[in-house]
This record gives sequence, C-alpha cells and structure tokens, in this order.
Amino acid sequence: MLRLAPPGFERFLQSPQFVATFGGGEANVAVAIAGFGGQSRYCTFLPANNPIVDAFAGELRRFGVEPHIVRSKGRFGIYFVEPGANQRPSKVVYDREGSAIALAKPGDMNWDDALSGAAWFHTTGITPALSQSAAGLAVEAVQAAKAKGAIVSVDLNYRKNLWKYGKAAKEVMPSLVKSTDFVIANEEDVQTALGLQAKVDVHSGELDRNEYRNLAETVLNAYPNLKGIAITLRESYSASRNGWSACYHDGKDFLLSRRYDITHIVDRVGGGDCFGAGLIFGLMNLPTSQDALEFAVAASCLKHSIPGDFNRFTRDEVEGLLKGGGSGRVQR
Amino acid sequence: MLRLAPPGFERFLQSPQFVATFGGGEANVAVAIAGFGGQSRYCTFLPANNPIVDAFAGELRRFGVEPHIVRSKGRFGIYFVEPGANQRPSKVVYDREGSAIALAKPGDMNWDDALSGAAWFHTTGITPALSQSAAGLAVEAVQAAKAKGAIVSVDLNYRKNLWKYGKAAKEVMPSLVKSTDFVIANEEDVQTALGLQAKVDVHSGELDRNEYRNLAETVLNAYPNLKGIAITLRESYSASRNGWSACYHDGKDFLLSRRYDITHIVDRVGGGDCFGAGLIFGLMNLPTSQDALEFAVAASCLKHSIPGDFNRFTRDEVEGLLKGGGSGRVQR
Amino acid sequence: MLRLAPPGFERFLQSPQFVATFGGGEANVAVAIAGFGGQSRYCTFLPANNPIVDAFAGELRRFGVEPHIVRSKGRFGIYFVEPGANQRPSKVVYDREGSAIALAKPGDMNWDDALSGAAWFHTTGITPALSQSAAGLAVEAVQAAKAKGAIVSVDLNYRKNLWKYGKAAKEVMPSLVKSTDFVIANEEDVQTALGLQAKVDVHSGELDRNEYRNLAETVLNAYPNLKGIAITLRESYSASRNGWSACYHDGKDFLLSRRYDITHIVDRVGGGDCFGAGLIFGLMNLPTSQDALEFAVAASCLKHSIPGDFNRFTRDEVEGLLKGGGSGRVQR
Amino acid sequence: MLRLAPPGFERFLQSPQFVATFGGGEANVAVAIAGFGGQSRYCTFLPANNPIVDAFAGELRRFGVEPHIVRSKGRFGIYFVEPGANQRPSKVVYDREGSAIALAKPGDMNWDDALSGAAWFHTTGITPALSQSAAGLAVEAVQAAKAKGAIVSVDLNYRKNLWKYGKAAKEVMPSLVKSTDFVIANEEDVQTALGLQAKVDVHSGELDRNEYRNLAETVLNAYPNLKGIAITLRESYSASRNGWSACYHDGKDFLLSRRYDITHIVDRVGGGDCFGAGLIFGLMNLPTSQDALEFAVAASCLKHSIPGDFNRFTRDEVEGLLKGGGSGRVQR
Amino acid sequence: MLRLAPPGFERFLQSPQFVATFGGGEANVAVAIAGFGGQSRYCTFLPANNPIVDAFAGELRRFGVEPHIVRSKGRFGIYFVEPGANQRPSKVVYDREGSAIALAKPGDMNWDDALSGAAWFHTTGITPALSQSAAGLAVEAVQAAKAKGAIVSVDLNYRKNLWKYGKAAKEVMPSLVKSTDFVIANEEDVQTALGLQAKVDVHSGELDRNEYRNLAETVLNAYPNLKGIAITLRESYSASRNGWSACYHDGKDFLLSRRYDITHIVDRVGGGDCFGAGLIFGLMNLPTSQDALEFAVAASCLKHSIPGDFNRFTRDEVEGLLKGGGSGRVQR
Amino acid sequence: MLRLAPPGFERFLQSPQFVATFGGGEANVAVAIAGFGGQSRYCTFLPANNPIVDAFAGELRRFGVEPHIVRSKGRFGIYFVEPGANQRPSKVVYDREGSAIALAKPGDMNWDDALSGAAWFHTTGITPALSQSAAGLAVEAVQAAKAKGAIVSVDLNYRKNLWKYGKAAKEVMPSLVKSTDFVIANEEDVQTALGLQAKVDVHSGELDRNEYRNLAETVLNAYPNLKGIAITLRESYSASRNGWSACYHDGKDFLLSRRYDITHIVDRVGGGDCFGAGLIFGLMNLPTSQDALEFAVAASCLKHSIPGDFNRFTRDEVEGLLKGGGSGRVQR
Repeated sequence: MLRLAPPGFERFLQSPQFVATFGGGEANVAVAIAGFGGQSRYCTFLPANNPIVDAFAGELRRFGVEPHIVRSKGRFGIYFVEPGANQRPSKVVYDREGSAIALAKPGDMNWDDALSGAAWFHTTGITPALSQSAAGLAVEAVQAAKAKGAIVSVDLNYRKNLWKYGKAAKEVMPSLVKSTDFVIANEEDVQTALGLQAKVDVHSGELDRNEYRNLAETVLNAYPNLKGIAITLRESYSASRNGWSACYHDGKDFLLSRRYDITHIVDRVGGGDCFGAGLIFGLMNLPTSQDALEFAVAASCLKHSIPGDFNRFTRDEVEGLLKGGGSGRVQR
Repeated sequence: MLRLAPPGFERFLQSPQFVATFGGGEANVAVAIAGFGGQSRYCTFLPANNPIVDAFAGELRRFGVEPHIVRSKGRFGIYFVEPGANQRPSKVVYDREGSAIALAKPGDMNWDDALSGAAWFHTTGITPALSQSAAGLAVEAVQAAKAKGAIVSVDLNYRKNLWKYGKAAKEVMPSLVKSTDFVIANEEDVQTALGLQAKVDVHSGELDRNEYRNLAETVLNAYPNLKGIAITLRESYSASRNGWSACYHDGKDFLLSRRYDITHIVDRVGGGDCFGAGLIFGLMNLPTSQDALEFAVAASCLKHSIPGDFNRFTRDEVEGLLKGGGSGRVQR
Repeated sequence: MLRLAPPGFERFLQSPQFVATFGGGEANVAVAIAGFGGQSRYCTFLPANNPIVDAFAGELRRFGVEPHIVRSKGRFGIYFVEPGANQRPSKVVYDREGSAIALAKPGDMNWDDALSGAAWFHTTGITPALSQSAAGLAVEAVQAAKAKGAIVSVDLNYRKNLWKYGKAAKEVMPSLVKSTDFVIANEEDVQTALGLQAKVDVHSGELDRNEYRNLAETVLNAYPNLKGIAITLRESYSASRNGWSACYHDGKDFLLSRRYDITHIVDRVGGGDCFGAGLIFGLMNLPTSQDALEFAVAASCLKHSIPGDFNRFTRDEVEGLLKGGGSGRVQR
Repeated sequence: MLRLAPPGFERFLQSPQFVATFGGGEANVAVAIAGFGGQSRYCTFLPANNPIVDAFAGELRRFGVEPHIVRSKGRFGIYFVEPGANQRPSKVVYDREGSAIALAKPGDMNWDDALSGAAWFHTTGITPALSQSAAGLAVEAVQAAKAKGAIVSVDLNYRKNLWKYGKAAKEVMPSLVKSTDFVIANEEDVQTALGLQAKVDVHSGELDRNEYRNLAETVLNAYPNLKGIAITLRESYSASRNGWSACYHDGKDFLLSRRYDITHIVDRVGGGDCFGAGLIFGLMNLPTSQDALEFAVAASCLKHSIPGDFNRFTRDEVEGLLKGGGSGRVQR
Repeated sequence: MLRLAPPGFERFLQSPQFVATFGGGEANVAVAIAGFGGQSRYCTFLPANNPIVDAFAGELRRFGVEPHIVRSKGRFGIYFVEPGANQRPSKVVYDREGSAIALAKPGDMNWDDALSGAAWFHTTGITPALSQSAAGLAVEAVQAAKAKGAIVSVDLNYRKNLWKYGKAAKEVMPSLVKSTDFVIANEEDVQTALGLQAKVDVHSGELDRNEYRNLAETVLNAYPNLKGIAITLRESYSASRNGWSACYHDGKDFLLSRRYDITHIVDRVGGGDCFGAGLIFGLMNLPTSQDALEFAVAASCLKHSIPGDFNRFTRDEVEGLLKGGGSGRVQR
Repeated sequence: MLRLAPPGFERFLQSPQFVATFGGGEANVAVAIAGFGGQSRYCTFLPANNPIVDAFAGELRRFGVEPHIVRSKGRFGIYFVEPGANQRPSKVVYDREGSAIALAKPGDMNWDDALSGAAWFHTTGITPALSQSAAGLAVEAVQAAKAKGAIVSVDLNYRKNLWKYGKAAKEVMPSLVKSTDFVIANEEDVQTALGLQAKVDVHSGELDRNEYRNLAETVLNAYPNLKGIAITLRESYSASRNGWSACYHDGKDFLLSRRYDITHIVDRVGGGDCFGAGLIFGLMNLPTSQDALEFAVAASCLKHSIPGDFNRFTRDEVEGLLKGGGSGRVQR
C-alpha cells in the first residue's frame, strides 16, 4: 500500500505535500523480520504497468524482503494517515476500494510457488476485511500453508472502516483462526474479530493486566488448535504518549513483558506489526518464549521513535534496548 | 482529482515525497475563469466523509470557484504525474477506477440546481471516458444545459488510457458534440474522438497551419450545430520546449493566433484547459473572436511557466503579455 | 497578517526559509467559526495591488470566510514567530508599523455594508493597540454593531509590544468594553487592559481557580453592561507543556471547564482566538453556557496540536474530544 | 533587506513557504567585492532589538563584509520576489515603507567613522528613491566621501515603484551624479534617472551597440566630473534567457565587452549589482579598463546561475570563465 | 560512494542541506544494467559497522543489484557535487582519501566467489586512480575475470583530481587495457589514460566526427586484444546544454549513433556510466552492434533528464525513445 | 567538522537528504562565547582548496568567531548524527580518519600568531583522541598558552569510538590536565580520561549529587595545579528527556546549580560544549563562580531546545531564563 502523510504535525493538505512511503500489515511484518536478520517473502496481488507498484517492489528489496507479486487487475491500495499529537488522534483514511488484493480470489495464487521453502506463514485480519473473495483467499492461504507443514500465525488486526462487504469480522475470522498456530491481537481485536469478551476499557489508559490472562485463556479454550496467543497492551494516555507492553500465553504459562513508557511518540502506525514480526522472529530464533516476547515488545517500542510504517532496527539494536535501560544516552 | 507529482525532475518516489495539488479538466477551467475575474461553478460527484475531498472543495473556494458537489459513493480520483524534461516525456498514471464520478449516472445530479443562473456550460471528453454511466451523465448534462438556454462547450480531450469500459471515444463523443455550441480540441482529439482525419504529424514539431483550416471545416461541416471550433497547435520539440498557438473557426472566418515559443516549460499539464477557459472567458467578455483567441493562447502560454494544473494568472497579467512582448523584464 | 516562522524548532533564519501562513486575532476567530460550520465575515483594511494580500483573501475563502476588505493605503502587517520548546519561550516580532489597519480611521469603513446581516460582532484589543485612529475605528465599530442590534464581544488580547502610540491600554479599552456584551480575556489582560487586579501569579504554572471567580465578578461589577465574561486559564509549565482550561461567569453562575494537560504543544499561537471562536459559536448554537464553554476549551485544546494560527477542526472533531477522553487512539 | 521568494517557479504562496535570504543594491555590491577578495564595509541604518536584522548582520560577516550599522527607528525593509520563467516576468513587490533607511536623514551617520580608511564609496539610486530625507542623506554621503578623497561611484538603478514621495528621479539623481566619479547604469536608468535620451528599445531583445556610445558620451558631456560610465546591455529574450554584455567609456575610449548568452537563467536579481562590484574591484585591482569591464561582465554572468541576490563566486572562478569558454565541462 | 549535492542550483551549503544519494562509476553501471532488466552484481570493499554503508547496500538491492561487499578497514568514500548551469560548470569535490577500496590490495577479494557465474566483468579507470594497491587490485580483477572466461570491459574514466599517489594514468591503465575486450572512453580519456593523441578540441562544442574514427583505430591498433571501442561524443555548449552521441568501432566497422540535443540538462553526472551500461547490455542482448550503440546513447541521453548518478529507466523506456522522436509528448 | 543529520526523527538516509551544518567541540565553544558577546578565535588545521571548508570558515565569521585556520594536508572531518527519541539513543558515526587535524603535529602551528592577545585558551579531549601527533599538538598548545600567561581550560570529552591509535585516554589526558587551570567534565569523562573512580551509575537517570563533591575533590587532589573543576550532571531518562544541572568546585567551595528538567529535547549534541562556553564566559565576566555556573547551565539548557551543534542564544536570553522560571510564556 502507498502511505501518504502530511509533513510534521500538519493536517491533510495544510501544505501541498505528502510524505510518500509504503506500508500495510503483512508488508510491515516482512520488512521487520528481514531487518532483524531473518528471511522473508511478501506474497500479494498488485496491478501491472504501474511505476508506483514498481517502486514498492524496489522498496521491499531494499529491506531484503523477497517480493512475490502476482500482477493482476485492480488498483494499488492507498492509505492516508495524519499523525496525531496530544488529544488529537491519528487519523487514517483508506482508499483501498477495488485494489488488486480485494479483487483477487481463491485459486489466483499458486501456493506451491508462493510458499516454496516457507517455515512460517503469517497473515492478518486486514485481507479478509477487504472483500468476500479476499476472505476466501486468506482461508485458502492458511490452509495451504498448514498443508505444507508451515507454522501459521494470524494477527487479528480489526479495522472497523474496512469491513464493508456485508459480513462482520466475527463471521469470518474464526474460520481463519481454526487453521492457525499462533494468534496476535490486542484486546479490542479479540472482542470484535472473534466475538469473545474482555473486561478491559480500551480508553482508560490504565490496564488491568490480570484481565489479560483470562482473555488469553478464553481464546485458547475456544481454539484448541492454537499453540499460543500474544496480546499487546497499549495504554493510550494521548496520541503522544502510550504505555507499551504485551503478554503471551502458550497454553501453560502466562508471561508478561517489561513495560515501556513511550513519552514522545514519533509514529505509532506499524507498531503492532513490528510486535508480530518480533514475536515470529523470536519464536524461531530465541531460546524461550519470554525472550521472544521481550524481543517483540522492545522492537515495537523502538518502532514508535521513527516515522513510517516500517521498522528500521536491527536485531543488535533491539537487543541493545533489552540489555540497556532505554536511557537514550548518545552512542558515539 | 488529487494530483501527485514527485519534486523537481525526479522520477516517481525517487524521494519519499509527492507534491500534492488538485486538478482535472473541468476543475482547471473553472479555476482559470475565476482567476480571470469571471464567475464559475464546478459541478461534480465526490465521496462524503473524506478530508481530502474537503481540502479540494476548500481549494476551489480559494480560487473563487463555487463548488457544487454531490456527495455520493465511490472514490476520489487520483492521478500521478511525472513532469518530463528534454527527450523524456511527462508521464501520467491514472488511478480513477471506481471514482464517484465514474459511478454516477444520469439522474443523479439535479440540473436545475446545478445550472441555476448559468450562462455557459462546459464539459470535456474525460467524463464520458470513465464509464458508460458517466458518458450518459455527460450527455444528460449537455442536453439539460441547452434546454436551459446556456451556451455549451466541449473540450474533446482524448485520453487513450481512460477509454476502457468497452466503447471507443468516437462511438460516444459525437452524441455530445451534437448538442454543443463550441468545440475545443487539438488535432489528435479530432481524429480519435470524432473519427475525422487530419493530415498532421503530431510528433514532428513542425505544423502546417493550413491543414488546420481544413480540419476545422471538416468538423464544422460534420456538426452544423457548432458555432465555432478552436484547435490548439502544440509543436513539441521536447518535453522542455514547445511552440504554442491556436486557431479558431467561427464558420466564416479562420483565425490564427500569435505563436509563443515556450523554451523552458515548467509544467504543461493544464495548459489546454487554460486555453479553454481563456476562450470561454474571451468569447463572453472581449470584443472579437480574435481577441478571445489571443487571450486564450496568451493565458495558456503563461500557464506553462508555473507548476500545477491550475492557472494562477489574472486578466491583467494575461493582457500584460498581450500588450508586451513576453520579454520577461523584471517588474519592479 | 502574514505570519513567518522558521521550520521546526529552528531559530530565525537558521535555515534560509520561512513557513509562510496567515493569522491575526480576528482572522483566526473568523476562520475557526467557519470551520465549526458557522458563517463568518472578516472586515478589515488592506493595501491594493498586492499579491500577498490577494493570497490572504484566497486563504480566507478557502476556509469559508467571506472577506470584506477595504483596499486602502498602508502596508500589509507581518509578524515573525519562533515557536519555543522546553524552557525557551516562543518569540513574536511584530512588523506592523504603517499597516493599512493602523492608518485607517473612523469613517473609513461603511458599517452598513460591513455589518449587513450580522448577528454577532467580535473584535479584539489588538486593533486599538495599533494607533490612535485604529482605536477610534474600533470604538466606532463596536458602537455601530450595537446600534444595528448585533451582539458584541471583545477579546482583550493585551500585547505589550504593540501599545506604542502614547496611550496605555487601560486608557482605551474601557471605552470599548462599555459597548460590549461579552468579554474574553486571560488574567493578565484583565489587569493590563482594564486596570483591574487579579491575585494570580501567571508564571507559577499552578492556578488557583477560585481567584478567577473574584476576578470575573470584579469585571462584571465594573461593567454592568456585560452579559458574560470568559477567562482562559493557561498553566505554563514550559513552552512545550501547558495546562489549559477556562471559566465563564454570566452574572449569576460561575462555570469551570474541564482541564486539558497539553503535553506536547505543536503551536500555541492562535489558541486563545480559537477559544473565543468556540465560545461565540457555542453561545449561538449550543444549549447551555457550560456547553459553550466546554466546546471552546476543547476546540482550543485541539488547536495546540497543529502548526499555524488557524484552527482546522470541525464541530464533529471538537465534539469527538468532548465525548471521548483525548486518549488519542488511532481513528481508522 | 529581507528577500522573500516562493520555492522553485511557484507564484507567491502557492506553497506556504518563502525562501528567505537577504539582498539590496549596496549590500549585494559589498558582498560581491568581499567574495572577489576585496575589503568591503556596508553602512546603513537598521532597527535595534530585531533578530531578523541580527541575522542580516551575521550573513554579511559570513561573506567577509564589515557591517557598519546605525541602529535607529523604523522597520527593516522587505522585498518579495517571484522569479519568472519564459514569457512570465519576474515580479518584485516592495515592502519598504517606513524602513529605518527611509526615515534616516542627513546628520544621522557619523561619516568620519563610516568612511574611515575607505578608498572607494559606492551608492545607488535606490536610497534617494525612498524618501526626501534619504535622498538628502545620499547626497551628504557622496559629498563626505569626495571630501575625504575617496573615489565615488553611483549605480543609477531606477525603480519606478519606489519613487513615491513627490519627486521624480531626474529631479534628484543629477545632484548625486555631480559629485561622482563613475556612473553605472543601464539604458533605461540613463533616461529616467538623468532625463537623457537613448534610442534603444529595451523590450526588443536586440540591441544596437553603437547607440550606446552615443548614450555614454551624452552622459559624460553632461557631467564633466565623471571619469567613466559603464552601461550594461541586457537583451531580454524571455525571463529565462538573456544576452548579457556591457560597455564602458572613460572619456576617451569606448570599450565593448564579450557577450554571454545566458540560456537558462536561475536568478537574475542582483546581476546588475554584481556587475557594479566587478567593475569597482576591477578598476582597483586589474591592469586595464578592458580587464575591469570583462571581469565585471563575467562575474555578473555567473551570478545568473545561482539563486539569491548575492554573488557567490571567487575571483578565481570569474577568471576561470574569462580564460575558458563557458562550456560548462564538469570540474573534477 | 555517498554523493552529496546542494538542492536546486545552489552552491555548496548556500542552504544547510545536502541531497544525499549514492553513486560511483561501477555502481552506476550495475544499477543501470539491472534497470534494463539484466542481472548485475557489484563487488567492492566497504567498512563494517557503518549505517551509511548499510543504506548503500540497501539502495543497490532496491535497484535489483546484488551487492557483493567485502567489509574491510578504511572509510566509505564521499563525493560532493555542485550541479552547474549556463556558463557555470558542475563542480566535483572528492573525499575519497583512505577509503576502503583505496586501502584494499591484491588478494583481498576472493575472485572465485565474486565472479561466480559472471559472463561479463566491467571496471573503470577510477579504481586504479585511487592508490597503488587499488591499481594492483584492478589488474588482478581483470585477469581473474579473463581467466574465468568472462568478457571484460573497461571505462577509462580519467579523473585528474584522483591520480595522486605518484603514478600517472598512462603508466597504469595500459596494463588494464591489455586484458580487456572492450574499451569505453571519451576523447580526453584516450589521450590522458592511454597517452594516445586525438585531434579534438574538447571545449569547442563542435566535434569533428571523422577524427573519432582515427582515434578509435589508433587504440585498436595499439591494443590488438580489443574486440571493440566505444567513444562518447559530448559537445558541451554550456552546463545546461550538451550535444550527445557516440561512436563504436569493432575492428571492422565504424558506427556513428544518432545525436541528441540535450537542451535542459538536469544532471549529467553518471551519463557516461549509463552509456557503458547500455552498451554492455546491448552487446549481450541486442541483435547488432549498431543496436547496442543506439541503445547506449538513448539510455544515457535519458539519464541527463533526472537528478542523481543512477539511471532510472527501463529497457521499454529507452526503446520508447529509440522508436519515437524524443518530442516529449505527455504519456497519458 | 561537517555535521550530517537526517531530517526530523528519521534514520540515516530514510530520505535522500542530510541537514548539513557544522560542529565540533572547540568550534561549538567558540561560537557560543561569541554569541554571549565575548571575543573568540578558533584555531585549527583544515585542507586548502575545499569549498566545504570555506563555507565552514564563513559560518564561523557569521557567528562573530575569528577563524585562525592553517591550511594543510588531510581531509575535513565529518560526523553523522541521528538524533534519538524516547528509548532510541542518538547515534554518532565519526568519519574523521585522515583529517587535517589528525595529521597535524607539534610545530605545525605558529602559537605566537594563534594565541596573540588571548586571555584564555580552551581545548578538549577530542583532539588528543585523534592521533599520536594530534595529542602532541594538544600538549604543545596548552603549554604554549600557559607560557604566554593565558588561562587554560580543558573539557575532558571522552569519546570511546575515537581513541584508536594505540593509546588509552588515561595515558594521554593527564599530561594535558597537568598544564591546565580549569577542567570541565562529566562523571564518565573523569573515570575514563583520568582513570579516577566515581560511584555514579550513568544509566540510572537518578544522580546522587553528594558523590560529585567527592569526585571533584579526587580530581583536585590529583592535580593541584587546577583552580577549579566543573562537572555536568545529565540525568538521562530517555533520548527525549534529561535532567540537566552541574556542580563546580574551586578548591574551597562546592557549588551546585539549579536543575532543569528538559522534557522535549530537540538536540542535545553540543550541550556540553555550550556549558563549557558559558562557564568560561561567566568566569571572565560575572561576579561570582556561582553566577558563572548558573549562566553555564542555563545557556546549555537552552541549547537543548534548538537543532544543531551551535548555541544560538545571547547573554540577554540566557539571563532571561535565569531571571524567569522557564515557564515558556510567549514573548510578544
């Protein structure tokens, strides 16, 4: 997706300029994993003969992601984002109608090629939100990945402005989660995408961490196929300051991460995707689930300090935060 | 339409930035006429609850154009443009699929309101290129305007990348031109939009002005309802240098304008629209057809010296060029 | 007025660039009211044949404000502003000597035209600060508005660097307030513009809200013509963080607003004007004085989160803050 | 003077941004001479307690010019400039009313200090255009310089938008020229500032060089005190392309310089000042008048290739153009 | 190499900003070939633990080039470039002392890895200019490539400011050319790098194409191992306008390309490298030598129309120029 | 040194742009002292024929610093800095290998010229970190200054990434400190540069001020030649928020400054240098050591609110903070 944002803290078109980068849930995960040193491939549908799409593919390569792009009919999705400050929330305006991915349908992707050599497959709740056919495609993808022996993870990623084709998220997402090994979510996702209740007030800023254990166990009980669920805990004091932590439940143990006070948010969009990437990378490469969880939270904490959807931190830098205290002393 | 262009002479996304302005054939005409001191109203369909659209409406008001916008389903059209230089042509990438105007259909606009008080109605060949329903809407508009006693003009404006819904321009445009008083075109438009032949090599840079009389008369003969036809003569030496002039035929006289050598083009997009605006303004406000033609050519010549689709010159400034010689002496 | 500011947190001309926008007390109020959905007209004196002035008029139109500009002799006022950070205060340098408004005098404005159809007239203490003749003009305006049956409000807006023509604010402002229905002020304004004492330390950051009731009543007692007075309460911890609230006294009740902790100020200039606009809009359109007060404070709180003098929030957005908690969750 | 220009080839405030630099006839000359390696001092009146003025003084020091600034009442002059292109002329809007230099009067400058050690004094026709008192100051300056044995030069520099205080240039300038050794002018200056006729069409682009000999001799005959007169020959084909040369008459010989075809003008403002600086520097440092003339023309030719009023070329670079052919081969 | 350029046509640090991209002879060639659709690998030495170097590697990947980087001691080379205009030449300031490539020596690169699968090896005269050890490395590289059966080409690329370690180019380059199949050069390179004379005045702008046949044959006779030599013909009218063509001699036929008049140069740096890339790509993929030559000239012609060292045109776009006439008509 | 930083909070080359300013320990001190109204001269070695160096010299002059530059062999040092935010630390990448100052050696500077008229000489621990010869030069400088009767101060300024030529800081710095009157340091500098222990956890954010007295006395006891030592106390909560204060010991009294909570750091690089400048200026111009200490801390506190290495505050502005409370009220 093309991401268009006004410069600084301006509102849309206050100046005749957009900062033009790329983003989108799955792409953000792929970029972050490559940045940590992992291998990643990004599979999607995009229109042919479009230099903006070509630039997107180049950008993926730049980060070390292998683009696996089926050129098909439809548009290249766009989203506009106005980063917030203080009491003013960030605002996202989607322009994804008629995008190539929304028009794609089951059977359009050759999964043997797309998944060749893949040990892990990750998707999000954004694809099934776009259209009936995209939802079918997502289910097909998850099932194909399972069939090929890949581990599967899904970030529920509920976006209320996207579910417009006549189905509610909770009518569709369960079929995806049933073929999944790991679920990533925030407390709102669980309620809206899976129809399971959490006693959490998402607007209070103060979170009761114990409620999260119950929420995680509710999901694990409902979907016994799951090997683990991670839930991010964003305490939103304002658009400029969030508390940031997460918990993880592997069916046996409930783990809580260190909590970061992010006091001067530069850009929070993509933070959740970076968490997902960190978790996947960590579960594949680090000794324990706690290590994976801490890596994921630290990586996504750092993401908040740079503009753009994409994470731009190496494994060394994330581990630097884990070892140090985030005191921000100049490195020279 | 939102217009997105890279800064300077960069290619798309060479820097992560777009210069973000607005444009589009009819909007450009409305803005230019208001800039000359005329009154203009811009009637269209645009999506609701969209801050980018709100910014567009504000921009029209800034130029003194009255926005008459029906909020309806569909997207806000976008176009990407990469201004060329030397042998490198400017490149336009349309992203207009599913736009509100493309989805609009006959009956969706209350023409009594839209045309209230209008003495002149102008449209272009871009609207009928978008969809079958938009073509129907364009015909409806022209007929409604005629019925209300307004003068009607059409800029043929052929865009080969737009006609994709199954009809060719020459199957559709004649029905529009049949209810029209004035046609504006370039030599290519006449051939592709009306299916009439001109013996002109559009790539040679050198134009035989006499051929244009024949071409104009061919059109006037084919459409006896026409009161006049104006044809712009762009001699394209390179993306940076064009010769620029026009001719006008009112059924009796064939008039040729002064020719301008535009040696350092800043932005030629919108030049033709500015010509149309100048002609309409001139025909309504100036003593003779020759005055109108010269005004139109001078105004559009000046348009080439500033970035963006929109003309930003006053009547005084255009007349300054007509009186002076374009020697570019500092005004201080 | 033209507003020139360095980019980011730079000092003047650290880079050879100014961010160039428009502002000024009354213009800011007019723009904000139009943004909320009200109708507003901006009456002033500005020089003719000046493209910078023309751009200002266009900008007003863009926001939906009707410019009512008398073209007269004199300059277009300019102000330079260096937005502060942390312990560094924002710095304003005025360049308003010889401006058209400063040279204007009673009799120069046709108030029948200017006030045609006006239900409310608002002015500020900045105009009478500019010159003896401008002070006379302000008094004339207020009296004309009263005579025509409009409600009148005055924002005292004391600016110590402006009162230079030989009179102190407290020699002039009382004559204005005597013909006024509503006064808007901060605690410093009351003391310097009206010569009435408040026991408030404006630099402490901590404000004793009870003192404000006394201050409001002192003013209401001194000017029995007043129907109400609103006082903004800015607790200035630093250039980057302010507490922001206000109180309102209608002669009977003393109302206190919700308080906002604005922790990452983007631009506080124009905040007070946005408060005034919100109050006027609220008193005209909302059920109760408390509603008006809360609307005004919330609107001006939001203003601090964007650059430039002008408010750029709709009524819906302001009410969104009033209904929500300012937690800044992404809207998507 | 502060110089405010829109970015690129935009019109004023097309974007909310000004490129903010400094300029003005005499300052431009001082900067250019320091750039060539000469010593220069810039004497003027400017307001106190103004950080924009402080930035100007710093900028002069950066170029090696010694600022000799009397802090006095009044404003800091501003000018807005919109660089032209093609048939669109550059446009200058002055905002100099009430500037400190306009308010200064004879006796306000201590010429013993200001001229201490000066071998050459240069002024222009801009100062006497500002006000009666500034005209008096200019005459005083020239006479003081002559009395102290300095060589005196005057650039006639006629600006029709400045002479507004009731006198015509030709009523004032002759008194200046009577105490001058060298006059610098263009053909228009001679006519309007001295009231002497030249048979030259300044808008034709084509110049008859022989007419210039007559023009020069007319001036030298009218002012026998003059040791020489230089006249620049700007052939203005468009705002983007000028021919550029000059002639010089020392009372005996009439010298013509090499002519440069400046085909892609970046910024022509300040070009004439750079010529003046080059001539003064050349007359003081180079073997012959022809050398001085060629140096002046080459330096000012180069000035056209960079933005801003100020010359930024060293003596070596100017001599590089004189020795080479201006073929523009990369230096690496 | 990091390339730092001032924005627009400013001189160095006129604004506190550099446009920061990457470039360098061999990298430019690799990028252009990948852009045409070829496969390319870029082999070099660069310092470890340097985020600027990491960004360079990412940029190569973005263009589809495979970076083959040996991390070693030394700096990352930098060059500053000030693009010229009119009579003002572009200026390059090298900051390459102590770069990793300059410190590298024969034996430091594992050529089996570096050249694995390579059908063609290309290098330039810049590497041997940096240091004695780099010269040794270049000779080693060429010999290793020949030994592995790759075709070898060398762009002589003489840079007088680089040869500083005690040897002249003509003492070193012949040993390189002796193991080479194809030489690319301009007329100055041949003289300075190989010590062979050409009767061409490089500053005249007018080139005698027949002299080039003699020059080419002189080289082919001196180095009978050569299969072909290409010489670019740059007619430098000014920094803004060049004639651009080339010739090619394969030992039998002397071919001349079409000539392009590049009238509004945006950035000519990298133009020669793009020619080399086009020639290599063409010799490998197109039917005839004439096709390869025309492709190379057209590609490098287009390169002059965009900023930065890197070519950003596809094979389709180059062939578009070859088929069309470079008339620069908008593509829409 | 040239300082290259990405715009805003981007990572290196996220956009193809660097903010390009100048900096470096000693230059920063010289600029700040000139800004306070003192006289300062900056003595160093820099390469000849380098326009970047010329721009640096101009920038020093702009601030009123007298450049005393010996043009010699070697490069112009560069450093890249990525300003941090939140938990992300600022990152400095040095590119100083082979700089002119690193290649300079004892005897290369004529100290009679360099120190002519100097009352105070200041240097830092950065110069001796660069090379063996630079360390010798630093010792020579300090001894020459002492011999001429100047007061000498040294800022220990330990940079671990610079000490690479084979000696540890604590082997070199003591010889410098032995000829010094005043030492400026932070707690880490004392330990690493002088090998003396402090019981302070530099990463905790919380500082025990009493430990600093012991640390200061340890240094004063070890170097009885010292007249005073100042230690800055930076409490690093994050890259965005620091506590900032300092202490000073003159051999008798231990003084603690006011503490500033810098909650929204714009740029902390150069803060320590500004402290040093404030202390030197204060010790030379203010009544008491406490005054000097408070001046130094307030000045460097303000430095954190603007981008770039250089302080840009006047003595009046620093004293404004000392008198006020840093509440950041707008000055207008």
